[in-house]
Amino acid sequence: MFGEEKSVGVAVLGLGNVGSEVVRIIEDSAEDLAARIGAPLALRGVGVRRVVADRGVPVELLTDNIEELVSRDDVDIVIEVMGPVEPARKAILSALENGKSVVTANKALLSVSTGELAQAAESAHVDLYFEAAVAGAIPVIRPLTQSLAGDTVLRVAGIVNGTTNYILSQMASTGVDYETALADASALGYAEADPTADVEGYDAAAKAAILASIAFHTRVTADDVYREGITKITPADFASAKALGCTIKLLSICERVTDDEGQQRVSARVYPALVPLKHPLAAVNGAFNAVVVEAKAAGRLMFYGQGAGGAPTASAVTGDLVMAARNRVMRSRGPRESRYAKLPVLPIGMVSTRYYVNMYVADEPGVLSLLAAEFAKRDVSIAEMRQEGVADEGGQRVAARIVVITHRATDAALSETVAALEGLDAVHRVASVLRLEGNSE
Amino acid sequence: MFGEEKSVGVAVLGLGNVGSEVVRIIEDSAEDLAARIGAPLALRGVGVRRVVADRGVPVELLTDNIEELVSRDDVDIVIEVMGPVEPARKAILSALENGKSVVTANKALLSVSTGELAQAAESAHVDLYFEAAVAGAIPVIRPLTQSLAGDTVLRVAGIVNGTTNYILSQMASTGVDYETALADASALGYAEADPTADVEGYDAAAKAAILASIAFHTRVTADDVYREGITKITPADFASAKALGCTIKLLSICERVTDDEGQQRVSARVYPALVPLKHPLAAVNGAFNAVVVEAKAAGRLMFYGQGAGGAPTASAVTGDLVMAARNRVMRSRGPRESRYAKLPVLPIGMVSTRYYVNMYVADEPGVLSLLAAEFAKRDVSIAEMRQEGVADEGGQRVAARIVVITHRATDAALSETVAALEGLDAVHRVASVLRLEGNSE
Repeated sequence: MFGEEKSVGVAVLGLGNVGSEVVRIIEDSAEDLAARIGAPLALRGVGVRRVVADRGVPVELLTDNIEELVSRDDVDIVIEVMGPVEPARKAILSALENGKSVVTANKALLSVSTGELAQAAESAHVDLYFEAAVAGAIPVIRPLTQSLAGDTVLRVAGIVNGTTNYILSQMASTGVDYETALADASALGYAEADPTADVEGYDAAAKAAILASIAFHTRVTADDVYREGITKITPADFASAKALGCTIKLLSICERVTDDEGQQRVSARVYPALVPLKHPLAAVNGAFNAVVVEAKAAGRLMFYGQGAGGAPTASAVTGDLVMAARNRVMRSRGPRESRYAKLPVLPIGMVSTRYYVNMYVADEPGVLSLLAAEFAKRDVSIAEMRQEGVADEGGQRVAARIVVITHRATDAALSETVAALEGLDAVHRVASVLRLEGNSE
Repeated sequence: MFGEEKSVGVAVLGLGNVGSEVVRIIEDSAEDLAARIGAPLALRGVGVRRVVADRGVPVELLTDNIEELVSRDDVDIVIEVMGPVEPARKAILSALENGKSVVTANKALLSVSTGELAQAAESAHVDLYFEAAVAGAIPVIRPLTQSLAGDTVLRVAGIVNGTTNYILSQMASTGVDYETALADASALGYAEADPTADVEGYDAAAKAAILASIAFHTRVTADDVYREGITKITPADFASAKALGCTIKLLSICERVTDDEGQQRVSARVYPALVPLKHPLAAVNGAFNAVVVEAKAAGRLMFYGQGAGGAPTASAVTGDLVMAARNRVMRSRGPRESRYAKLPVLPIGMVSTRYYVNMYVADEPGVLSLLAAEFAKRDVSIAEMRQEGVADEGGQRVAARIVVITHRATDAALSETVAALEGLDAVHRVASVLRLEGNSE
């Protein structure tokens, strides 16, 4: 149709939810994709752990010899959707070294090895695309690397993990506790058998590392990202949030910050935070994802959609596949990694946010002023302090639940304050400390 | 920094809000942009209607000889932000023929001349980018052409005109009539002295033509887009909408439709519609824009942000500039126009939606069944029929206001029904007919 009819050879590594959907789209939309690319796609093989029939793909296309598949002469593009970090890393490096363009959805790998992979792609003059690695079907990587290439990104804040968002949405709407909501999520297939990567924020941290790297043209790896999970959030926290006109969301936040010495730095962090109900992220419920980007000229942008699942992720993967294939046909290349800024990472202690502190204290006169003094000593200014209830023991009031909302303070100052509070006789325990985001007072 | 230090020459045509911001960003972010591109940008000249000092740009860079500017040997990329259709069309064609890549924000031009411009870009092997032409800073063009290149887009529905959205938001929140809201918008600079292009839907129709063309890989021009403006919307319509749990928005809708004969067609249309308050577009207020995309694999995506204004539009323009410049440095090219589908346009008469019909009728027994019969005769099924008030004349009840909500029906059937209703003695007048979108019953 475009004169160039030599087909573009594709190898798919992995035949799980995403891989199966990708293979299906390549087959079902063959004519459309060929017209968009300028040449037909040809599926050369599918790499799997064990070759067995009835996988929905002709058995002769299946192979467990990944190394051979990614080095075949008739393969132009390798799609890696097998995870985890290894053996994916080895397969991708091998593909790149063999001159294949690579499309991957592997956020865990990218968040630790972007440098190595980008370098290999650069040396081989091929494309490395990974739109599906963050927020599934939602275009986020391409808008950040291309659409906003002329702007200065100031902040990226997103809900990028569907499992935790489902759990928190359930807790918010039904009042159940964390364990119950997790069990629901597991029953519905939203949480894996071992939910650690999701509920402890590792998945969200990997995505934060990728977002921070591309938004700020620097390199941030998963280890640079401060991380807290959602396992300690209680119905009491949701009750307090509600009373404050907020809900609780697990946020991945990437910020460009100027430190006290005027140095530009990058902050990347993942934690559950109180978010005002009026903030656009507060309305993102269930398994949905959303990313808010603030840029100097563009202002605030929001991207919303399905962040996970076979079909949505496959949409992002095949979008990348079409772009990489089109580049092959046009003997062109997509954008290279842009990483000139080399911004140092701001330690969490220097990060400044507002806080919500929830504690149980002796129900006696004078306690509030004692508490307030500890905040004041460390220059943590209190915006609001309120008693939200009492704890009984054998019919006796033994403790009052006190909630404190602070103005902006550094994490270091707040942590010292909490340690001091915990040392007071009048304080039974500090039950939870959460940040308050999306509200700048 | 990347070995290649020859600068990329840029000419900017037009020095209004957007042009001034683009020039400012090129200067203020010179170092960043150079690092991202791999070579510095050099502003060679700015085309203006009249060369006068104090335009914020060194006067020696200004020229009124556009033809000469776009053919200069040291210009690689031409940014057209001068509008309107002419002389922009001539300048862009001349730039493309001279081998310059072009970035434009000119939706009016693109909606009538995309074919001609794309062909010229193709012949000259250069880039033609126009992210800023739809929804300002919000990345929409690139997500549709690239991120969703592997998916099948089913529907695009957006609020893409800030002026009308401001007016309708004002009417919804304050209850004022159209004229008052328009006057407010004018006073705040949200509406132009002659607001026709906005309030009659011409601007939104141009954007619908562009969106439909790229979403469905076909060619839709402004003339193919069915269009209704917002000038006849009344406070009574908003009151009815509210009673139905809806608000009213001016929507640009592009759909892939299979007609009765199994033929794939495209529908592009602009009109004010009732939108349920729960729909994500209902919450898009004031001068903001949003676009909802539904694709087969990706599901529903939403893009939200500032759709107009100097800085947001300049963000999109300079993003395109960086991509075009990077392609120059890498001797590469961005995606070409993809237009293989050639879908015929579905006439509005064959478009099927739900309707809201608001009419004043004689306040007598038997009238409702008379009205209902006219709907039934034409197979337009009624979902809801209610009396919403009475009209007085000299203290006498002379008419009842009746609101009818239909199930899905074709525009042809509904139009015939309305004509028949208007012919009834009992019907004083059909005051308004609006579609109901975002609700599929």
